[in-house]
Amino acid sequence: MIDKLIEKIEQKQNPTVVGLDTSFDYLPDEMREGVNNFAGAADAIVAFNKKLVDAVADIVPAVKVQIAYYEMYGVEGMRAFYDTCRYAESKGLIVMADAKRNDIGATAECYAKAYLGETVVGGKTYTAFDSHFLTVNGYLGSDGIKPFLGWMQKRDKGIFVLVKTSNKSSGELQDMKLENGKTVYEYMGALVEEWGKDSIGKYGYSDVGAVVGATHPVQAEILRREMPHTFFLIPGYGAQGGTADDLKVCFDKNGRGGIVNSSRGILCAYRQEKYKGLSFDEAARKACEDMKADLNRAIFG
Amino acid sequence: MIDKLIEKIEQKQNPTVVGLDTSFDYLPDEMREGVNNFAGAADAIVAFNKKLVDAVADIVPAVKVQIAYYEMYGVEGMRAFYDTCRYAESKGLIVMADAKRNDIGATAECYAKAYLGETVVGGKTYTAFDSHFLTVNGYLGSDGIKPFLGWMQKRDKGIFVLVKTSNKSSGELQDMKLENGKTVYEYMGALVEEWGKDSIGKYGYSDVGAVVGATHPVQAEILRREMPHTFFLIPGYGAQGGTADDLKVCFDKNGRGGIVNSSRGILCAYRQEKYKGLSFDEAARKACEDMKADLNRAIFG
Repeated sequence: MIDKLIEKIEQKQNPTVVGLDTSFDYLPDEMREGVNNFAGAADAIVAFNKKLVDAVADIVPAVKVQIAYYEMYGVEGMRAFYDTCRYAESKGLIVMADAKRNDIGATAECYAKAYLGETVVGGKTYTAFDSHFLTVNGYLGSDGIKPFLGWMQKRDKGIFVLVKTSNKSSGELQDMKLENGKTVYEYMGALVEEWGKDSIGKYGYSDVGAVVGATHPVQAEILRREMPHTFFLIPGYGAQGGTADDLKVCFDKNGRGGIVNSSRGILCAYRQEKYKGLSFDEAARKACEDMKADLNRAIFG
Repeated sequence: MIDKLIEKIEQKQNPTVVGLDTSFDYLPDEMREGVNNFAGAADAIVAFNKKLVDAVADIVPAVKVQIAYYEMYGVEGMRAFYDTCRYAESKGLIVMADAKRNDIGATAECYAKAYLGETVVGGKTYTAFDSHFLTVNGYLGSDGIKPFLGWMQKRDKGIFVLVKTSNKSSGELQDMKLENGKTVYEYMGALVEEWGKDSIGKYGYSDVGAVVGATHPVQAEILRREMPHTFFLIPGYGAQGGTADDLKVCFDKNGRGGIVNSSRGILCAYRQEKYKGLSFDEAARKACEDMKADLNRAIFG
């Protein structure tokens, strides 16, 4: 699956993933008017997401759907998550479920089935929230990750494991030094390289990627060096303060190795002064174009 | 909320939480017959859970609903999760959502709203998957935890943070030694004590608990000493190999300090030789009684 992602990025010449962290509150007034329950909110969110996907599908390779923004609208929100993933996939986009799931053996297997695999009921096989990639948290160690690797292989999928997250306090645990002189995030990075070693594709990257925040360029540079086979999902650009120049260290000499997420910067572009007068979908497209130019300048410039 | 949990445990004289990790495959043949889609599976799971809750509600204080087992049945599975939580609550049980959620600031806030808080749509306030307790993963540090603390305080809720998980490979990261001589799990434990310091109740425990596996008694004993204000949610009893004698180190001199989970040992008790001939709900009740006796023997014996 990582090869497909890399090829989509190169085809569009755009290492951007659009984060569909679609809070109902982000919608334009006219889409929120008269809506006052979960079902209505879910419908409005799906309508917004579809229009946004239509506006950007030809210029971006992927969307990342942040499931927390859907879970807060209950069962109806989960339906909106499902509909959003299906629609984005139907438009040829790679779909990343950003769910940071984690558990032990048998339970991790359930999450793996839910997002990457299949569930059998009465002899029939179904998919639940089928995605191309899933983000996972590796705090529980290998037997919390292996169920994902199994389905990854069976159904050509990928995962991104949290290594160095983009938030300010990520260092509290992740930057702690171990006895051997390495940090916790470097150690997690080494585990990720190990988990990926059997799924390295033709561009030298494996189906087991890592989440590495754009807001921590020093750590990102270390990780790029220590994780030569690991593709990075890079949050933190824009709203969180990471710049294209900060994150260029995540890319290799061929300009490969990462995909950069922007969520609010695209979803809420229509509220920015510089995109004033544009509809939300026009503004989102313009923001994607601007981001593409900014990233390409920094990575290849 | 921790005081309420402790009082329920004492009232029932039973530090057991029943894990509703209800895979469709665990149901008796007659409940699975003819069911071959997600909606049918979800209905059957809810029917099973309700009967099981009815059978044990007077002898156990709480249920832990493992959401992975519901997510694998898609949107219908999420409805089953919702219905299960609501039913258990209506029977006077404390409901723990075992979801191990984790993310950064604004996104963690969405998860906090979904499980502990409220979501506002069009000026109206709703709850999504309202629970008394939620399990969370602390790998991202304080700003991934604080949104949960906020709702915890506002709506009298609690969380359990993963510290030392029950699986075999939990040591890969969690047992690593830091430069200061402490392990990663001890360091996480110290963060948990810090996060809980403003919510210590009348029994000396805070609303910020910790997940500490019954399968690691040496580490559990260290944590009990280093985390005097932290209540433990203890998985790993039974099917995973942890015994009552292993986990008694989690309890203080008053016999307080933890609640022990059993899932398959109760859900699938009817398949065990020793409960042969009983219906699934009768067997589950008997298994709860046996577990209660076993725990009380070890803790107070």
